[in-house]
Amino acid sequence: MIIIMEPGTSEDNIQRVVKTLEKHEFRVVLNRGDVMTVIAAIGDKRMFDPRSLGSLEGVREVKIIQEPYKLASREGKAEDTVVKFDNGVKVGGLERPVLIAGPCSVEPEYQGLLDVAYAAKEMGAQFLRGGAFKPRTSPYDFQGLEERALIYLARAKEKTGLLVVTELMDTNDLPMVETYADVIQIGARNMQNFALLKAVGKSKRPVLLKRGGAASIREFLLAAEYIMCNGNDNVILCERGIKSFDSSFTRNVLDLSAIPVIRKLSHLPIIVDPSHATGRRYLIEPMSKAALIAGAHGIMMEVHHDPDNASSDGAQSLSIPQFEDVAKRINKLIGRIDYDNRIQKQELGIE
Amino acid sequence: MIIIMEPGTSEDNIQRVVKTLEKHEFRVVLNRGDVMTVIAAIGDKRMFDPRSLGSLEGVREVKIIQEPYKLASREGKAEDTVVKFDNGVKVGGLERPVLIAGPCSVEPEYQGLLDVAYAAKEMGAQFLRGGAFKPRTSPYDFQGLEERALIYLARAKEKTGLLVVTELMDTNDLPMVETYADVIQIGARNMQNFALLKAVGKSKRPVLLKRGGAASIREFLLAAEYIMCNGNDNVILCERGIKSFDSSFTRNVLDLSAIPVIRKLSHLPIIVDPSHATGRRYLIEPMSKAALIAGAHGIMMEVHHDPDNASSDGAQSLSIPQFEDVAKRINKLIGRIDYDNRIQKQELGIE
Amino acid sequence: MIIIMEPGTSEDNIQRVVKTLEKHEFRVVLNRGDVMTVIAAIGDKRMFDPRSLGSLEGVREVKIIQEPYKLASREGKAEDTVVKFDNGVKVGGLERPVLIAGPCSVEPEYQGLLDVAYAAKEMGAQFLRGGAFKPRTSPYDFQGLEERALIYLARAKEKTGLLVVTELMDTNDLPMVETYADVIQIGARNMQNFALLKAVGKSKRPVLLKRGGAASIREFLLAAEYIMCNGNDNVILCERGIKSFDSSFTRNVLDLSAIPVIRKLSHLPIIVDPSHATGRRYLIEPMSKAALIAGAHGIMMEVHHDPDNASSDGAQSLSIPQFEDVAKRINKLIGRIDYDNRIQKQELGIE
Amino acid sequence: MIIIMEPGTSEDNIQRVVKTLEKHEFRVVLNRGDVMTVIAAIGDKRMFDPRSLGSLEGVREVKIIQEPYKLASREGKAEDTVVKFDNGVKVGGLERPVLIAGPCSVEPEYQGLLDVAYAAKEMGAQFLRGGAFKPRTSPYDFQGLEERALIYLARAKEKTGLLVVTELMDTNDLPMVETYADVIQIGARNMQNFALLKAVGKSKRPVLLKRGGAASIREFLLAAEYIMCNGNDNVILCERGIKSFDSSFTRNVLDLSAIPVIRKLSHLPIIVDPSHATGRRYLIEPMSKAALIAGAHGIMMEVHHDPDNASSDGAQSLSIPQFEDVAKRINKLIGRIDYDNRIQKQELGIE
Repeated sequence: MIIIMEPGTSEDNIQRVVKTLEKHEFRVVLNRGDVMTVIAAIGDKRMFDPRSLGSLEGVREVKIIQEPYKLASREGKAEDTVVKFDNGVKVGGLERPVLIAGPCSVEPEYQGLLDVAYAAKEMGAQFLRGGAFKPRTSPYDFQGLEERALIYLARAKEKTGLLVVTELMDTNDLPMVETYADVIQIGARNMQNFALLKAVGKSKRPVLLKRGGAASIREFLLAAEYIMCNGNDNVILCERGIKSFDSSFTRNVLDLSAIPVIRKLSHLPIIVDPSHATGRRYLIEPMSKAALIAGAHGIMMEVHHDPDNASSDGAQSLSIPQFEDVAKRINKLIGRIDYDNRIQKQELGIE
Repeated sequence: MIIIMEPGTSEDNIQRVVKTLEKHEFRVVLNRGDVMTVIAAIGDKRMFDPRSLGSLEGVREVKIIQEPYKLASREGKAEDTVVKFDNGVKVGGLERPVLIAGPCSVEPEYQGLLDVAYAAKEMGAQFLRGGAFKPRTSPYDFQGLEERALIYLARAKEKTGLLVVTELMDTNDLPMVETYADVIQIGARNMQNFALLKAVGKSKRPVLLKRGGAASIREFLLAAEYIMCNGNDNVILCERGIKSFDSSFTRNVLDLSAIPVIRKLSHLPIIVDPSHATGRRYLIEPMSKAALIAGAHGIMMEVHHDPDNASSDGAQSLSIPQFEDVAKRINKLIGRIDYDNRIQKQELGIE
Repeated sequence: MIIIMEPGTSEDNIQRVVKTLEKHEFRVVLNRGDVMTVIAAIGDKRMFDPRSLGSLEGVREVKIIQEPYKLASREGKAEDTVVKFDNGVKVGGLERPVLIAGPCSVEPEYQGLLDVAYAAKEMGAQFLRGGAFKPRTSPYDFQGLEERALIYLARAKEKTGLLVVTELMDTNDLPMVETYADVIQIGARNMQNFALLKAVGKSKRPVLLKRGGAASIREFLLAAEYIMCNGNDNVILCERGIKSFDSSFTRNVLDLSAIPVIRKLSHLPIIVDPSHATGRRYLIEPMSKAALIAGAHGIMMEVHHDPDNASSDGAQSLSIPQFEDVAKRINKLIGRIDYDNRIQKQELGIE
Repeated sequence: MIIIMEPGTSEDNIQRVVKTLEKHEFRVVLNRGDVMTVIAAIGDKRMFDPRSLGSLEGVREVKIIQEPYKLASREGKAEDTVVKFDNGVKVGGLERPVLIAGPCSVEPEYQGLLDVAYAAKEMGAQFLRGGAFKPRTSPYDFQGLEERALIYLARAKEKTGLLVVTELMDTNDLPMVETYADVIQIGARNMQNFALLKAVGKSKRPVLLKRGGAASIREFLLAAEYIMCNGNDNVILCERGIKSFDSSFTRNVLDLSAIPVIRKLSHLPIIVDPSHATGRRYLIEPMSKAALIAGAHGIMMEVHHDPDNASSDGAQSLSIPQFEDVAKRINKLIGRIDYDNRIQKQELGIE
């Protein structure tokens, strides 16, 4: 941690900062410059809120140097986390990228879900996604079928062997969701719902954690840290677009450089959801391909048996035939990436 | 709702949109221009997700015209909501702006809290704030004293007569928090925690709803709508800064124009939290004054008996003597605003 | 400057950074922590681009500590700059806040401009604004009357005694604009048009520099530094709203905390333009008042003799009677602020 | 254009809007809903500033429907623009993506530039980039070698046959820059320097127009329109990252979905600059690949003979050997994309 003092501040003010740091067992190095003094504090920031230093008189700015997450960081664990499932599916590291497909919400027509699931299976997807509890901006929008949706997903899993990904919104629903889901999704709006993060941290199920729409990468990894420090190491991160000043042509801005950045900072797998990121069907294919080539460990895309009549997010869902076309081309690319990964390892080392 | 078709799209595509709208009981007016066709749909959008139209072939863009919230809107209720408490305190409308003061977190030293409460009372504050459950970005930061904090707040209330404002983070804690709190706060990070919004919508306590750091005004009012359509009309909105590209000198950007905008769109009271918005102690006074003059119904500010040693947010907390100075000048301003409000009504009508 | 090395980087990498710094005459202090090494460099960053250090192997991050502007900073000059005009008008410091009023563009009807000018004079404004060259997002929008507009402004000045503020867009037009203008405005879109900044830096006229729509406060003050280091100390800053994720109800977000922040960092005067910031007429009054109470040295507002038929920005312009109402109430506030400023100085010292 | 009236506004207010529209030769269709009235206006918005309607009493909102640019739009010209050079190089459409490489600034060591140019040629690049006039945020940073840099670029062109791309910052320098440059670059900070856009619009040289750091896609295409409506059709767009709330790990956020969006809206070629977008060397390769796979017509990257001692942007420049490695892998990808483009055309049609 670096504490920058105001130019010309008194020696008393400097010593007050030094004492506070020493009280919290930091080792302190003073750098006295011509214009201002800078204090470097070396120690374990994690037990101390450095912003409180900002209130001391004469302090201009406090800069954190060590990333504040530990379990989620490469410094804490150098090798990639690979999340493994009983049926042999693996997510992360240099494993072949996975495909997660399914409707935004599970809807009353079970057959529609099943059709999507068969198509997903056919195209090599490993996971079926579908919402049972829907976080909708408006209370008047469709809120999900709840347990009925979970039962449908379980039945589709039985038929196809696909693993089930579904969102949890309330700690009270965790036992029910755990029963049916192979992966528990935490949605973007709940990325800093700390009660929920702590709860899934105690679950045995892997967690798919979506980045909040205005979450920095640091906040995103700290949210993962909440899950991990409660005991659950199987966190899959998901970039799904961030808010920007321009939403005329895409719902959000897909931040693809977050993929190599996160792979550098963290060992956790990171996938991409181009459907929510862009909100436009025609952008799913190019953004999926771009994400994969940038190093994403998987793609999650919305597929609906009848997008024109979807209860939610129809505009960003692929129909089954569209999905089959897109998946075919993505699979071709995944084959090549697999090859590139091996080549790249030989040539460069990882990253 | 306005549906803009792609230039040169086929008549079939246009008719498909018309039929979908008619199925959902919209009245449809077609405007055929030289370049493109525009469809106006008149009816109750609230039961229909208009984005699903975006998936129909030939649709370029769907524009919502009526604001999607109803109970929170001026159109639904023209007169200002004034939230009233048993001890006669009132928030909203043309009532004299209120003052909420207290530490970010309630801490183990009860006496410190009590000192702050007495100072707040002395300076004319109506509410004592203090966190029992703390939403912290890092799991390693102080997480709050939980029920012990609530008990301290209740004791300070008994001594001073101040009403208690405290944050709820988990639906499971609602019964406990309701027992102690006069106002239940929903924090910025939980503004779209819909399970929580529904739960407090069923509570008898007024709710202080903070704007999410990247929430649009529309999303903010829709979050209020979640609470209101579950039965709780006593919602106090709170602007506390939004994220921007520049956080070198303030934590967030305080969006003060949100005050007159929200007062125009909605009848709900809106207060401002300059402490969280700016993250800097020296900005609390000018931003409080600016908020009040722009029409805020109250100010919530952090006051700590010993900011240098606060468990959280020390840098943005006022000490007790600083608070007294600031409150004195704010009270002088509130006196004037009260006068202005009456004058302004005569001169202009409301807004 | 602080250079943070990657954890576990080699001694060679550390020494390469040290040598580079020493080559540029920095004094270097090494802090070796358990996790990583931090290098503090003390010296004159201004002649050295610190980002180039970022390319050295083993460097994680470079943090600038001293603000990179010098002439614009309080550290360079402690006392407030007050821009003075021949007719006795003063802008900045503890002077009474000024009022700048006039149409967005000067239009063909000279009488309309004159009516606005007389009303402005009557209400105590010191400056008449009006665009001769208009920076319009679309090439098909009205681009300004050019010299004819300047002549109109000069004639209105002759009649009313108001000083003239008008925008310069091209270095080639500087001699012409200088002839007519008392203050040369640099628009938000040109805030980093460095050729233009250098040119007005060599002018004798004071410059009104508007903050770019996505300019950080640091970038804003660096733009002022471009003008000042070319010889022109008379820079008046102008906050006019920044871009955000929400433009449904205001064009930009008016960043009012920038006022006290800039008054702390810099000695330059700072005024506010609520018309461009909000784009809505009904927001001009509350945002003007809020800006003044937060410490703005003046307000610039758009007034048009016939806003419904304005060539540009009608929606955010006040009509003459509306302006008179608003100005009356603002003048009352300015009277109070003047009083408060004096009181505050006694009580607190500046800031 | 759609004009949304306030709920319950008077018939007079509605008729005033209708008359204003008719005066500007719009055809008007009235939609009277239960809650509010919506007016659709069909005609040529390009000669009329629709925001002025916003000032009429009773108007809630004005929504533009037709994109305001015309020459830059697909509606104006369906087939892709391919910018062609005398030596046979082509940019745009389904042509093989191009590679532009070179240092941020041209520096005093001519040999270094030549080494980069030879490496670029060797790796199949078509263009050599290098700054002669540098737009630097701080006036104390290196500002460029001016004409000497242009002469160096011309000599490197003579040796290698590479086409020269260099930035113009001041209209006064246009004749000089035109003499040496094959492509005139307009930098991100000058994207709305309309005097400059008009000047290059009259030039015979193709223009490389960089997207402003906070420019919407619509504003970007309107800037292109400024160039085109002054007579220059050869505009190459360049995405180079946009500002966001998070700049801890990348300088900007590279908006890759802008590529397919712009290819849908416009016929102009669009390339990507991953160096400026990310500001980090290790992100150039993954972001270049992602851009190409998303449909970019080319990549511009910074290459320096000695990045550790670069005058500007060293941290984001590749060294010559790093560039050779990256270019080799990118060329392999370009080969595949070329193949994919042809396949995709057969399978899908364009887009």
